[in-house]
Amino acid sequence: MDRRSVLTGAAGLAVGAATFAKPAIAQGKRELKMVTTWPKNFPGLGTGAQRFADRITKASDGKLTVKVFAAGELVPAFESFDAVSQGTADMYHGADYYWKGKSQAYNFFASVPFGLTANEMDAWIHHSGGQELWDELGSQFGIKHLLCGNTGVQWGGWFTKEINSLEDMKGLKMRMPGLGGDVLNKIGANALALPGGEIYPALQSGAIDATEWVGPWNDLAFGFYKVAKYYYYPGFHEPGSSLGVGINSKVWEGFSESEKALVQDAATAENNYLYAEFNARNGAALETLVTKHGVQIKKTADDILNAMGEASGQVMADVANTDKITRKVYDSFVSFRKNAIAMGKYADEAYAKARRLPFKYGG
Amino acid sequence: MDRRSVLTGAAGLAVGAATFAKPAIAQGKRELKMVTTWPKNFPGLGTGAQRFADRITKASDGKLTVKVFAAGELVPAFESFDAVSQGTADMYHGADYYWKGKSQAYNFFASVPFGLTANEMDAWIHHSGGQELWDELGSQFGIKHLLCGNTGVQWGGWFTKEINSLEDMKGLKMRMPGLGGDVLNKIGANALALPGGEIYPALQSGAIDATEWVGPWNDLAFGFYKVAKYYYYPGFHEPGSSLGVGINSKVWEGFSESEKALVQDAATAENNYLYAEFNARNGAALETLVTKHGVQIKKTADDILNAMGEASGQVMADVANTDKITRKVYDSFVSFRKNAIAMGKYADEAYAKARRLPFKYGG
Repeated sequence: MDRRSVLTGAAGLAVGAATFAKPAIAQGKRELKMVTTWPKNFPGLGTGAQRFADRITKASDGKLTVKVFAAGELVPAFESFDAVSQGTADMYHGADYYWKGKSQAYNFFASVPFGLTANEMDAWIHHSGGQELWDELGSQFGIKHLLCGNTGVQWGGWFTKEINSLEDMKGLKMRMPGLGGDVLNKIGANALALPGGEIYPALQSGAIDATEWVGPWNDLAFGFYKVAKYYYYPGFHEPGSSLGVGINSKVWEGFSESEKALVQDAATAENNYLYAEFNARNGAALETLVTKHGVQIKKTADDILNAMGEASGQVMADVANTDKITRKVYDSFVSFRKNAIAMGKYADEAYAKARRLPFKYGG
Repeated sequence: MDRRSVLTGAAGLAVGAATFAKPAIAQGKRELKMVTTWPKNFPGLGTGAQRFADRITKASDGKLTVKVFAAGELVPAFESFDAVSQGTADMYHGADYYWKGKSQAYNFFASVPFGLTANEMDAWIHHSGGQELWDELGSQFGIKHLLCGNTGVQWGGWFTKEINSLEDMKGLKMRMPGLGGDVLNKIGANALALPGGEIYPALQSGAIDATEWVGPWNDLAFGFYKVAKYYYYPGFHEPGSSLGVGINSKVWEGFSESEKALVQDAATAENNYLYAEFNARNGAALETLVTKHGVQIKKTADDILNAMGEASGQVMADVANTDKITRKVYDSFVSFRKNAIAMGKYADEAYAKARRLPFKYGG
């Protein structure tokens, strides 16, 4: 997934912002404008944003009616943050690493290379100081942040040829934007940040050798399997991409206590529901990719993963030094991460291993 | 965790049901009575139930005010289901395996030996037919069911002596109620269903050799580390215990569409928030157990896990045959489970392994 990729085709839809600039209040009903960084009803990301909006509209009986604008409809996708900060829009749904130009700290509230999983993001943000840091960061821009969805562990990506060792990564032209791309460059690959619509032809022509996207559910729709037969796992670049809602602080503070609670519940509910949807749909999509389209699933070699881990550690250490709040967020994040890794082996990891023992169950 | 264990000390608090039998409606505000199977503010389970109730009260601005009754306050814990079914209470918060006396199918909507993890439960229930089956089951009893929390993978338990092989399990007296206990008996151990308050003295006197409970956060509070130094992982008996809300069908159908949406969002939000809390707090508690109390963490041997897996498969196959709806739920559950296991290795499991490679990150 990435910032530029989801916009292709939507940029031409920009509509004059002035048309929507005034809050609509009629019969005690208030309309809230939510911009998103996704094309209309983009599977998972766009549909989840719409469902979050509908949750508020329904639960408030229309007292708060949230109108969703796809990328480019009200403002271009990457102006969503500024639009909310300045009050042109009331809220956005997106992935917060898109705002790293404001502060690199925003990376940590979406996903960073070799960072936290979806469950760990929830534990850090809900219960281990993450939300407080996110609020501190957002207050600099007049934005209140809430968790609202997660893609789960993303996949390594689509490759036109087999990659067996670190040596094979040297000079490899791979589409991967953001911090993941910085990591690839550090290990000798050549990272490119192509928009979504340019990936397929670039793979087909051989202009690139590989691309990452999200996971089976989203990747199947793009048809990459037609031009790249090798599908590598696991991804290192986005191990649990949190999606977020940003709400203009004055709009947020203007909510009654009950409206705040209602909006917060809607966001947290969608946080759970959308992640569950990725988990449910990835399984079915993977089966289609393998059985119908003959995709070959491959595990990324450990020497490559370890080199990417080492490079990720360096990239993140550099990121930490960019400003004061980023350092603070980084310190909290890596401390939580360390404990989560220590703990993980006793719970889900050990259980997953136990479930792979040869016993017979249910079949 | 288990049905009988959380009740000790609360049974004496029963208050005449008649006191609360009439719905309170005043100034457009309606009071809903929620019974629970937990002692007042029991960490995680009780506090999560209270938080769910507060979410509804807050988001509705008191229009729906939910009053929480701890186990025994309005009805005894295990009469919660009947109380809601018959309308004595409007809703309950509990773990649905408590209702296996109504139909064994209820086990699958909480947790079963070697069954689904928290994330898998969410994916099955929200997006893979689980909710529809739960609704079908509930309709037989006049109850609408919703997910509302998860403990995550529970631990194997506390042992007064080391257990190195399947042979060491023979004749072992272990406190484990429910289907997990049936599994233990099948492999030659001696499962006992002691209430929570009797476990500690039984361990101390040697009347039992071992006990399960929940995980580090909840177990620390009970002080088992004082009488049993070995803490085994992973648990097989409850790999992701979903907590649930049951709402009287007439009450549910009497809700407006917006009230239904609001209650549903509150439940799904708490489903996310409470699981995240278990994940966050287990880490800190485990550190206390190890560094402060000298607890020895041990991995259950694979031959024991495999034997428990085999026995679990047999116990669940027997359960499946108890009635028609249970067979239907079982078929859906094991089919989803098979796909989830196939998929798991490409995502969280592979990522967890990659993160354990020796690279340096954040230190």
